[in-house]
Formats: sequence, structure tokens, C-alpha cells
Amino acid sequence: MPYRAPVEDIRFVLDHIAPFGAVVGSPQFPDLDRDTAMAVIEEAGRLASDVIAPIDRAGDLNPARLENGKVKSSPGFADAYTQIAEGGWMGMLAGEEHGGMALPLTLATAVNEMMSGACLSLALNPLMSQGQIEALENHASDELKSLYLPKLISGEWCGTMNLTESGAGSDVGALRTKAEPNGDGTYAITGQKIFITWGDSDFSKNICHLVLARLPDGQEGTKGISLFMVPKYLLDENGEPGEENTLRVVSLEHKLGIHGSPTCVMEYEGATGWLVGEEHSGMKAMFTMMNNARLGVGVQGVGIAEAATQKALGYACDRVQGRSPVADGTGAIVDHADVRRMLAAMRADTFVARAISLSCAVALDRGRSEPDQAARGAFLIPVAKAFSTDIGHEIAQSGVQVHGGMGYIEETGAAQYARDARITSIYEGTNGIQAMDFVGRKLMDGGDAAFGLLDEIEAFAENVRGELPELAEPVWSAAETLREAVEGMLSLDMNDRFGCAVPYLRAFARVLGGYFHLKAAKADPNRARLAAFYIHRVLPEFAGLLAQTKRGSADLYAITLDDLAAG
Amino acid sequence: MPYRAPVEDIRFVLDHIAPFGAVVGSPQFPDLDRDTAMAVIEEAGRLASDVIAPIDRAGDLNPARLENGKVKSSPGFADAYTQIAEGGWMGMLAGEEHGGMALPLTLATAVNEMMSGACLSLALNPLMSQGQIEALENHASDELKSLYLPKLISGEWCGTMNLTESGAGSDVGALRTKAEPNGDGTYAITGQKIFITWGDSDFSKNICHLVLARLPDGQEGTKGISLFMVPKYLLDENGEPGEENTLRVVSLEHKLGIHGSPTCVMEYEGATGWLVGEEHSGMKAMFTMMNNARLGVGVQGVGIAEAATQKALGYACDRVQGRSPVADGTGAIVDHADVRRMLAAMRADTFVARAISLSCAVALDRGRSEPDQAARGAFLIPVAKAFSTDIGHEIAQSGVQVHGGMGYIEETGAAQYARDARITSIYEGTNGIQAMDFVGRKLMDGGDAAFGLLDEIEAFAENVRGELPELAEPVWSAAETLREAVEGMLSLDMNDRFGCAVPYLRAFARVLGGYFHLKAAKADPNRARLAAFYIHRVLPEFAGLLAQTKRGSADLYAITLDDLAAG
Repeated sequence: MPYRAPVEDIRFVLDHIAPFGAVVGSPQFPDLDRDTAMAVIEEAGRLASDVIAPIDRAGDLNPARLENGKVKSSPGFADAYTQIAEGGWMGMLAGEEHGGMALPLTLATAVNEMMSGACLSLALNPLMSQGQIEALENHASDELKSLYLPKLISGEWCGTMNLTESGAGSDVGALRTKAEPNGDGTYAITGQKIFITWGDSDFSKNICHLVLARLPDGQEGTKGISLFMVPKYLLDENGEPGEENTLRVVSLEHKLGIHGSPTCVMEYEGATGWLVGEEHSGMKAMFTMMNNARLGVGVQGVGIAEAATQKALGYACDRVQGRSPVADGTGAIVDHADVRRMLAAMRADTFVARAISLSCAVALDRGRSEPDQAARGAFLIPVAKAFSTDIGHEIAQSGVQVHGGMGYIEETGAAQYARDARITSIYEGTNGIQAMDFVGRKLMDGGDAAFGLLDEIEAFAENVRGELPELAEPVWSAAETLREAVEGMLSLDMNDRFGCAVPYLRAFARVLGGYFHLKAAKADPNRARLAAFYIHRVLPEFAGLLAQTKRGSADLYAITLDDLAAG
Repeated sequence: MPYRAPVEDIRFVLDHIAPFGAVVGSPQFPDLDRDTAMAVIEEAGRLASDVIAPIDRAGDLNPARLENGKVKSSPGFADAYTQIAEGGWMGMLAGEEHGGMALPLTLATAVNEMMSGACLSLALNPLMSQGQIEALENHASDELKSLYLPKLISGEWCGTMNLTESGAGSDVGALRTKAEPNGDGTYAITGQKIFITWGDSDFSKNICHLVLARLPDGQEGTKGISLFMVPKYLLDENGEPGEENTLRVVSLEHKLGIHGSPTCVMEYEGATGWLVGEEHSGMKAMFTMMNNARLGVGVQGVGIAEAATQKALGYACDRVQGRSPVADGTGAIVDHADVRRMLAAMRADTFVARAISLSCAVALDRGRSEPDQAARGAFLIPVAKAFSTDIGHEIAQSGVQVHGGMGYIEETGAAQYARDARITSIYEGTNGIQAMDFVGRKLMDGGDAAFGLLDEIEAFAENVRGELPELAEPVWSAAETLREAVEGMLSLDMNDRFGCAVPYLRAFARVLGGYFHLKAAKADPNRARLAAFYIHRVLPEFAGLLAQTKRGSADLYAITLDDLAAG
């Protein structure tokens, strides 16, 4: 059963869950109306369903490979990429000045979900370019902007992000790549970078590498890092790709999944680069970019969750096995209570992850003129990233289980979703690091953003208590328990918070899920059945998770390495 | 870091958790003493660590393949198999009459855990033979026994199980393979079987297929199925492999994991077979065998959990990244609270899965003379199978997470554990089916086995309440809550039980885990730290799971297919 972009569900979330109505027609988007926005989503949905999804299996079966130092992409990828570029999707967020669409982040987030669900390996490519465009718009000189932005936005060139080195992963500040002034305003970049997504491709005329490196007078750690544009081909006097730069793809990684996405080891050998932003302020540019990139990764989880749910449902409705346990059943395994339970959990959680991600995006869009919304958007980013990716992988694994023995056979495709999804909990900051951000930086407001959300949830639950008592009550009560946990968290030292950050983030997402399902049930009585499933069966997980927040980290450090080794 | 068989941990569980003392010297095992038993485990541990573990990666990287209709096994597998056979391990459980060791199931279970942790792909081969030996001992004629058992026990020949067909998976009764009498006491077997583990190999002189098929007068469903021995090579007058039988391996599956284990599509084309047991009673023989096979699969989960935990701990102690958050840290990522949390959960749950599995085995061994223990053993089988395999996969996924980006790179080996483990939740009856057995057949005693266990847990918790109040109290209280859930479950119709069977089984395992950790803390104060971690952080999961048991199945069937499709 081929993937169909969930246009209707996205529309429902934007109309009834995330207040997208406050974005269209706002000061930032005076010319955008709801119908135009929905038309954009429909158009992207068609592209995702009809053009991108059909190449997904080919990427898994015929991984990108390295031939004579150049990446040869998987079958069909070049053509699908061209159609993405021609649709203008690379420049969804970019300003109109250089040819962008200047759409709200909310729409870009919805589009990224659909493209990721259709083919994560290919969708990573535009996502990298989007990030680079954002970094350049915010930090590059006008000259660099006018040279690079039009080509990146049109998709003629692709962008990459070069942060990680073998000794500098989560600790970016440990990087050793050097940048030395050439005396003519350019810099010589020397060093090796790893885990570079789409570090090369055979369907773009230039590859623009944004590389973090340290100048000779750059101090140790993150404060001594600068950002450079290092193109694969140096630009000639017409701004077109000319001479090859001194950089190369050394090798591609052999990965668990996303085989269609070449993950490159890049070697820079005195390659010519141009400074982006100020000297020693490279991390600032990276952080700008990484914030939205985290949301982009979050919806990768949503996209795969959606695709895996569709596939499992299709199988469960087709596969006849044994006698139906119900009188008026279909005869297929979807009649079995446990299969229904799995499918309901998959569908209910896909909705939660989507609702969190789009709510985060709406808050960030509104945040451009409303400071409290900006705070809410920032608060939700680690939740959108960590919860959506963890649950995306869990849902994909449930999809394998629904398929039974066939799920373990690669040609079914169910296992590919699980393998592809697995990276999303790791890259763009592991979900452990997201949780540390959530209990650290995101509580530096004394809990204002958290309490604001909980106030909203409780107020809504109180409002609908008369109408939907069995759904409203548990949600209100969960929010109240979570409020105590937030207060408890605020009273802990930072490293004690870190010892329970992951379960705390998940509990927060679970309660948000209860809220969003309650809103859905209120907006559409047909949604009340799935809402009841979630609120009565899935939401209760939050209490067990919150038990951990009472423990801090002391018990973790009391456990010795010998205890862990056992043996 | 290479896998080391967890001999000490197994010894601890046998001495202090599962009452193995009641097995050694019992009427069934009069000549076995504890020290001999431990020597057996040590010897098997050496084989697992030194001979089997080193071939595990090669099996993943160089899958078994089909060449001219014959399986060519992965590098090193033939030699390792020979050493397993020469050690007599194939016949651990077999009677001494045909050359077996006649060891308790408990020891075989411990050995199977270690071999599975070392290399699941290879360990599957002896496990299949063990199952076949058991089936023949219990159901075959003396002639078949004397022809086949000595060769299977010595490992000269291998055994396989042929149940599944493309239309008959969980519903074995739907099978279509035919058996027609040849008039000379043999039968002509015709049909296609799929998912046949080790359906062929290049290191055994014959492959003995046990095949389920229907005789012409066999009724529809499971009651019309008979079991046949269908050897790859027909035996000559000396009982040695002679002429080829008319059966062949059609193809091998391309699977998510266990690449070293050839999963065959087998075609039987009028192949000559011999009836095992009575006509139409093939399912009885299969059930005998599948009971212990389920425990064997359960410890596959334990084995991979152990291996993945060891690997992740090794990485976490080696990998330096960022500043240590603690004053007296090692400088490696194991200093980080969240990494410790993951490792502690992995170690604590590996212990729980092992303790459940070995407790189940001890009960089955004692059950040969103590009926209440037989009932307990049967009760614990689906828990040992489903919980251990689910948690084994989860632990392997945590291992990937501890490795960060490196976990996604296949050469690290962390991802292989996750891929290999994934099948264990599916085969030998999916974990959904295990849970249905647990709430169905295993509650047909009116809850006696369940309540007996809960009585034991509560009595123990009361006894140690003075000494270990903070650990004993939550365990007692969890057992009491679980007791109410069991009572609730007994009051439900069967299909209502099925709608909450999976979370109920997991909750039961969680409470058992609390009990076993409490016992461990009582036996060895050094175990109290990990016990506290489990009881305060992991055990609370049970309450959220039990919330589902109040729901039955009605809410699941209220959800329409349209609700699940969304889109």
C-alpha cells in the first residue's frame, strides 16, 4: 500500500489544534490566507505521494555509493529532487528577495513531514539546504548572499552542514579543523569532518559546504569557532561553478538505515572558504539554524510514523489468518483485539507527534511578533524533536510487529521504516541532549512557559468538563500532577535534573497529547473514540515516568561501574 | 569489547533467585550436585565467549547464501558448530540412552542464553535440533528414535521444524501441505513451507525435517494435522545418508537481522516421510516442543540484552566527549547522568529477564515431580518468552542510543544486536499471541498460579520489610495492585482480556522484576543499588500498564477503520 500524504489530518490539526488562524493574516504574513495555505499543503502532498514516495524502496535497496570520489545517488532520486526544486520547495522559508516563498514555518513543517514520510533519505537533502539558506540569510555578507542564495533557493546547488569530527560530536567545541587567512579575504580550511549528510550528489551543479573551523587566534571551546562557506567548485567571475576546490569525499558510512542518503566523511585540504558572519561567532549561526532543524527532524519522526501506520493498517486489513474473533468482522487480522490495540496506539501517537510539532511551529511563527509565543515555541522544540522521533521509531517497530513474520522480511518494507527512523533520535542532538535542554535552558524562565501551557490545558479541560467529562477529567488531573513535577524539577540542581530529564520530557509530551486529543474530540465527535483510547490507555504512562523525577541523579551515581558490568 | 558469557550473574540467579537448589539432588537429578552444574555453565561460558562470539559479526556481514540449491554458511560457522557438537551441547536435555546428557532444563536454558548472546544466528541451529530431539523422544517410534536420535544428539545431523506456510502462520491449522500413504508405511509429502530456520547447512551430513502435513482423511484445522520425519538424504540399510529425497531449498529470505541464519523456503515434491506419533495428532507433538522452545527464544532476548549491555558499557567507559559533569568522574560519557540512567536500566532489566527465564526453567524442572511447580512453569513460559524478547530488543536499541551517531554505523555492531533481537518478539508465536495464552489458558486455573506467585512475593516483601523498607514496601504494594488486576482479568470475557493482554503481561513481568531485585538486594547488599534503581524508577511503569486492563476490548472495537486510516 503506497504512502498517501496525510493532507486531511494536517488540515485538521491546523484548523482545530494548533492555532494556525493566528498566523495567517498576521503582521508577518499579511497576504496569506487559510485557503492559499491549504492549497500549498495539498500541492506538496501530491508531490510527496506521487513523486517522492515511489522512490523510497529503491533508495534502501540501492544505496548511494561512491564512484571515483563522487557520489552516485540511488535510482530515481535525481528526478524526484529536480521536481522538488522546480516546485520551489527548497525556498519555502526563504525571503522573496532571492526567490524564496517566504512561507510560515508552520507550512514548511507540514511539508517537511510529508516529504520525510514519503522518503526520508531524499527529504534530508532539501532540509540541509533549507538550514543553510537560513544561516546565510541571517549571517552572511550581502555579497555571499547574492552569490549563493538564488542558486540554493532554486535548488540548482545544494547545501550541507559540517559540524562533527571524530572527536567532536555532541561536544562541538572540541573540533580541530583549522582555518587560516589567505591574505586575500579568503581562508584555507584544513581538517576532516564526519557524518556529513548529502556531502555530495550527482544532481546538483555545486555543493555548498558550511564548515565550522577554528582560526589561528580562536580560543579553545565553542567561543573560538568560526563558520565558512566552502563550495565544491569555486565560483568564476560570473558566479558559476568553475575550478574544483581542494576538498573531497573520503568515504560513505554503512548505516542501519537511510541508505539513499549518502553520509560522507569529508576531507578539506587547504580548501578555499569565505567567512560567514563574524570571526569566532560560528556557533551563533549554527544555533540559529539548529533550532529550526530540530523541528525539521521532529517531523521526520512524524512522517515515518504516518507512513508506518498506513502500511500496517493496509496489511492488517488484507491479511487473513485464523478465525475472526468477532461476529461482524472483516475476516482479516485487524479484527483481532491486540492488532487493533497496536494500530490504535500508532494512529493516536502519530496524531500527538504531529500536533506537538505543528503547535511548536505555529508558536514560532507567532513568536515573530508575540514574545510569549516565541518562548512557547522555543520551549516546545526539544519536545517536538525528542518525542516525535522516539515515538516515530516505536510506531515503526509496532508496524513491524503488526506484519508478524513478514515484518522481518526486508522486501515488505516495514523494517525499512524502523531502520530509517532510528537515526532521528540521535542526530541533530541526541534525544538525551534534547531532554537536557528541556530541563535546563527551557526552565531558565522559572517555569513560565511550562506553567503557561499547563494553565491553558487546565482551562480548556475545565471548559469541556461538562460536555466530555470522561476525557476532560483525566487530562486536567494529569496536568495538575505535571505541574507539581515541574515545580519539583525547578527545585533540583542541574545535574540532578539531567538524571530524570528524558522521562520528564516524555511525560510532558504525554500530557500534551492528552490535551490535543481532548481538543480533537471537542472539535469533531468522530475523534472522540481515538481520544478516549489515548486518554485512558496511553496517557497513564505519564505517572510512571514522573516517578523518576523524584530521584534526581544521586541513585545513578551511587551505582558503580562494577554494578553495571555485573557478568 | 568482546562478549563475555555472564557466568557469575547466572550463578547468582541460580543460587539466590530461582531455587535451583530444589532441582539438584531431586528425584529427577539424583546424581547432579551444584558444583557440577556450575562447572557445566562455566564450560559452556568458555565456548560462548571464546569460540562462538568471535564469529557473530562475520555472520552479519557475510550472510548465509544459496549456491546451486545448497546453503553455504557464513565464515567460521562450520567450525564453531563442530565445537558445539563435540562438546555434547546438542544433547544437553536428551536422555542418556541415545547419548544425551540428561541435564535439567535450567542448565540448558542458561547455556542457551550464553550461546544466543554470543551469536544468535548460529545458536538457532542447536536450538532447532534440541526441539526435534525432544519431539522424537516423546512421540517417535523406537525405530525412528534409534535411527535419528544418536546422530542428532551427536550433532552429526541437524534438525528443523516445518510449520509455517504462506497462508498458515499463527493459524497453523490452515496448512495445505499434503501427506499421502505410499503403501509401504512411508508417506509422500508435497507442499511448500516458509520461514524454515536452518533449512539447510554445509556442516551437517543430513538435515532432518519435521514437517506438519495433512493426510487425505485429515479434517480441516489443527485436528487433522500429522507430523512427519522427512530427511534431506534417505537413510541406507546402515542408517547412513544415501539417496537424496525429493525436497529442496527454493530460496533464502532477505531479513532485517540474523543474517547468519538461513531462513529457507522449502519445497517438498512427493518427498518420502515417516510418521512421528499417531495420525492426526501432529499438533500435540508440536505443542510439547514449542513450550520449551518458547523458553529457548525467551533467553535469546536475555542473551542479546546481556551482549548489548556489555557493549554499550564498554563504549560509554571509553568514549571521551565534553567535560565531565562530576568532580571525580572518569572523563568518559559514562559520567553523564542520562548515560548512566540508560546503562542502569539495561543492566537492571537484563537481570529481570534472566531471573524470570531461569525461574521458569527451575519450575519446569521441579514440575516433573511437583504439580504446583509444573503449573508455575507453564504460567511463566509466556512471560519469559514475551517480556524477555521485548526487553531484549529495547535494551539493544538503548545500546544503539548510548553509542550516539556511532550506533547508527553498522561496523560498530550495536545495531546488529537490535536487528537480530527484533525477530525474537515475532517467531515461536508473536508476543501478542503469548499474551493471549497468558490471559487465556494460563488463567484457566482460576488464577491459582498467579495468586500463588503474588502470595510468595508479598510474604517475602513482608519478611524483609524491616531490613529493606524502601525496597520492600513498593514491591508489596505493586503485588497487591496486580492481584486486583488479576481478579479483574478473571471477570472479563476472553476477547475483552485479549484487548489488554499485552500490557497486562508486561505489568506482571515488571512486578516479578521488583520481587527478583528485592531478593537480590537481600542476598547481596551490593545488589541493593541496582535494585533501588529498578524499584523506584522502572517498576512504576506497571501502574500505567494496568490502567489498560480496566478497558477490555470494547473501546478498541468502537474505533472504526476510518478512524485508524485518518489521512
